[in-house]
Amino acid sequence: MPERTPSPPAPVPDPPPSVPVTLSATLAADEALARRRRAGERVLSMASGEIGLPVLPALRDRLAAAADENAYGSVAGSTALRTAAAGYWQRRGLGIDPGLVVAGPGSKSLLFALLLAIGGDVVVPVPSWVSYAAQARLAGARAVPVPILPGQGGVPDPDRLREAVADARAAGQHPRAVVVTVPDNPTGTVASAATVRRLAEAARELDLVVVSDEIYGDLVYDTSAPAVSPARYAPERTVVTTGLTKNLALGGWRTGVARLPDSERGRALHTRLVAVASQIWSSPPAPVQTAAAYAFGEPPEVVERVAASLRLHGTVVRAVAARFTAVGAELAPTAATCYLYPDFEPLRERLAAAHGVHDGDGLAGLFSERYGVGVLPASAFGEPGRPLRIRAATSHFYGDTAEQRTAALEAARAADPLALPWIRGSVDRIGEVLADLAGAPAPAPTPSPHA
Amino acid sequence: MPERTPSPPAPVPDPPPSVPVTLSATLAADEALARRRRAGERVLSMASGEIGLPVLPALRDRLAAAADENAYGSVAGSTALRTAAAGYWQRRGLGIDPGLVVAGPGSKSLLFALLLAIGGDVVVPVPSWVSYAAQARLAGARAVPVPILPGQGGVPDPDRLREAVADARAAGQHPRAVVVTVPDNPTGTVASAATVRRLAEAARELDLVVVSDEIYGDLVYDTSAPAVSPARYAPERTVVTTGLTKNLALGGWRTGVARLPDSERGRALHTRLVAVASQIWSSPPAPVQTAAAYAFGEPPEVVERVAASLRLHGTVVRAVAARFTAVGAELAPTAATCYLYPDFEPLRERLAAAHGVHDGDGLAGLFSERYGVGVLPASAFGEPGRPLRIRAATSHFYGDTAEQRTAALEAARAADPLALPWIRGSVDRIGEVLADLAGAPAPAPTPSPHA
Ligand SMILES: Cc1ncc(COP(=O)(O)O)c(C=O)c1O
Ligand SMILES: Cc1ncc(COP(=O)(O)O)c(C=O)c1O
Repeated sequence: MPERTPSPPAPVPDPPPSVPVTLSATLAADEALARRRRAGERVLSMASGEIGLPVLPALRDRLAAAADENAYGSVAGSTALRTAAAGYWQRRGLGIDPGLVVAGPGSKSLLFALLLAIGGDVVVPVPSWVSYAAQARLAGARAVPVPILPGQGGVPDPDRLREAVADARAAGQHPRAVVVTVPDNPTGTVASAATVRRLAEAARELDLVVVSDEIYGDLVYDTSAPAVSPARYAPERTVVTTGLTKNLALGGWRTGVARLPDSERGRALHTRLVAVASQIWSSPPAPVQTAAAYAFGEPPEVVERVAASLRLHGTVVRAVAARFTAVGAELAPTAATCYLYPDFEPLRERLAAAHGVHDGDGLAGLFSERYGVGVLPASAFGEPGRPLRIRAATSHFYGDTAEQRTAALEAARAADPLALPWIRGSVDRIGEVLADLAGAPAPAPTPSPHA
Repeated sequence: MPERTPSPPAPVPDPPPSVPVTLSATLAADEALARRRRAGERVLSMASGEIGLPVLPALRDRLAAAADENAYGSVAGSTALRTAAAGYWQRRGLGIDPGLVVAGPGSKSLLFALLLAIGGDVVVPVPSWVSYAAQARLAGARAVPVPILPGQGGVPDPDRLREAVADARAAGQHPRAVVVTVPDNPTGTVASAATVRRLAEAARELDLVVVSDEIYGDLVYDTSAPAVSPARYAPERTVVTTGLTKNLALGGWRTGVARLPDSERGRALHTRLVAVASQIWSSPPAPVQTAAAYAFGEPPEVVERVAASLRLHGTVVRAVAARFTAVGAELAPTAATCYLYPDFEPLRERLAAAHGVHDGDGLAGLFSERYGVGVLPASAFGEPGRPLRIRAATSHFYGDTAEQRTAALEAARAADPLALPWIRGSVDRIGEVLADLAGAPAPAPTPSPHA
């Protein structure tokens, strides 16, 4: 008998409860679609909101020049990066001591570390980004769901927040924070200043920390719907997070920043946040920090790139929104981000009869299996019940190669990005899919400027 | 009255318990010393084990060339990186399917995510690296301490492991994993193959996952003490982590890899680990992944660099070890890493009488305040009682500039690194400090080859 045969494992008394944990739905959907595309299928990826645009050359050059940097440096990030991020906020009316800025390997990591540093349970809007509730579970906390007001995604209805927190506290839970997303993923909307203010006031009454995820802050193309930070109304208790993932398409670089409140509570939270960071990730990648510091400084070429991206996103997402409303789906006016969150409730009978689809999961399955279109069901964003909602992202429409993506930005600057055949093709494809799914007549293709 | 005056916070019932969290002792000590140095003080940093050597030019060039990469990519890391890491392990007799490799932004992040993915409590050796117990607390778990065997750091005494796990289970705790460090930080020793094997067998009997932190795997300079992975003896249950932070001095790049067991348990753990990663950090920084893939491929210039670093570490740490033993401190033969873990027990009376020092914390304070030498007390590594032990790292001795550090490597290749004035100066300085502290005659300076 070989010497090292494993003996049968001894029975373990009382297996400890495992934290339920699921793969991020957006990242999972992305990987699944990439596999199908590699297998030769015609697929249209509208699942994740990763921004399919190239690195701005000035930033690429900064990163390349910083490749020699190999020291951990400060846990909270370099002085250069923290100072640049403070300047970024200053220009948006939220000046802050760079000593209260903490950088991390992505704002996702910072959000998780904040939950640990704040402790207790956390209120999340419904619907909201896939990761808040999942992170709360990993942090051993409960996510207390509170619905948004219609058309004002990302911010829990302040009145229902009061009720939910009172109920949770009465039930022995410990809500200590509320997460808001301004502008919002998944709805692509921006809560009004009045709503943000009421939220901030409710948070103060309830003694909650407000964690304001403003990663889409630079992606508002409806100028009548400016994004207002709760840090304006409850500066003593609002933590703001952002990064370069969305405005500059730098998700893969992994860099994010948090702005802690300049108050006693804020300084105490800063100490705990940096301690958590020191035990989970040590410091953000040093070469990336140097390039990120340059980006947060917003020199002209960065400002121009963000503006061109914004025009591109706005043009494409609105064209796609029109395809959804054309077949009867309901859609709050999309004001920001690359997301649409259409409601197919008006098509409920048709979807049941023609496709056997009764809820968002079924609808997402139909999009994927019948049409090769990746979208996410409302359930991924914490929606209860059986809403016929999905989230569709248009940020993968700009092309598959760096050349196409650069051309898309160029077109947004000078001409019409919808004139580019690969963008027009994707927009027309989703139009066809929606028409087929809804039993509507096939829509006319987007007119080509050359036809 | 201004409209927005904060109303007094409403009383919150039953404040939830906050997770105790402290800043990583090594990172904190580094930052404190850097501040004193900037203030013009003469300081000698022996606190953190960050490796003060430059980036290998071939790796710098790879990172620079990858600066265009901005997609998240797979949560577990790119195929290129995972395949290269699998090759690295293959060359060390631990071949693995790249599908069971997970890359993260540093092995620290992977260790934390593993604790969450495994669930339950975790056995840690005493002494052990500062972050294991802190991470366990953040993960809501208990660290079950088990002493090492004398001179065999990083691996809990297998017999005491059995007792401690039985006691913990009897007390309603749920130890599910045991962390080992081979080679070890803080002791600079390497547990014998026999001890590692007994540990692996005990882990199997107790049904524990072994998390083997092998970040110092390439830093063994005593060829009579090879580091043997528990994955050899309990392949079905051992997770191995490593990275490029120590062998190639790339801490600031933030990259690490985990090798999951090729077993049913290993595959289930892989699924959970990737899910946790997707919710905490999304993916490791993309440009760094590309350079890391090249490094794990171990082309000749990488192999040569690691070998030169190893010679440098061995020469310097042994010279410093001789200074400690010269004044009567006890020291297990240092076989690996850049760490010394001297015991000043033989000097207890002298330290009490001359310096009012009675334990490791006092001793570390004396080193720092009286001599400007940063070291860490044994308590930082979980040692109970009042041992007169500190950990001293020699990895900052190679110079303050890229030129000095490159010269240090050059000297290790061709001549004697101790001949370089800045290295000799640091070694002599610690000799003087130790002599003064111990009341011993000042040692003769290291002979200069030119004198
Ligand atoms: C609402 C929201 N917050 C945070 C993030 C995370 O961004 P990162 O970790 O890249 O900064 C995303 C990315 O999709 C997001 O949609
Ligand atoms: C024992 C041990 N494990 C892990 C690490 C973390 O290394 P990294 O997160 O850079 O991979 C260190 C760094 O000091 C260490 O000493």
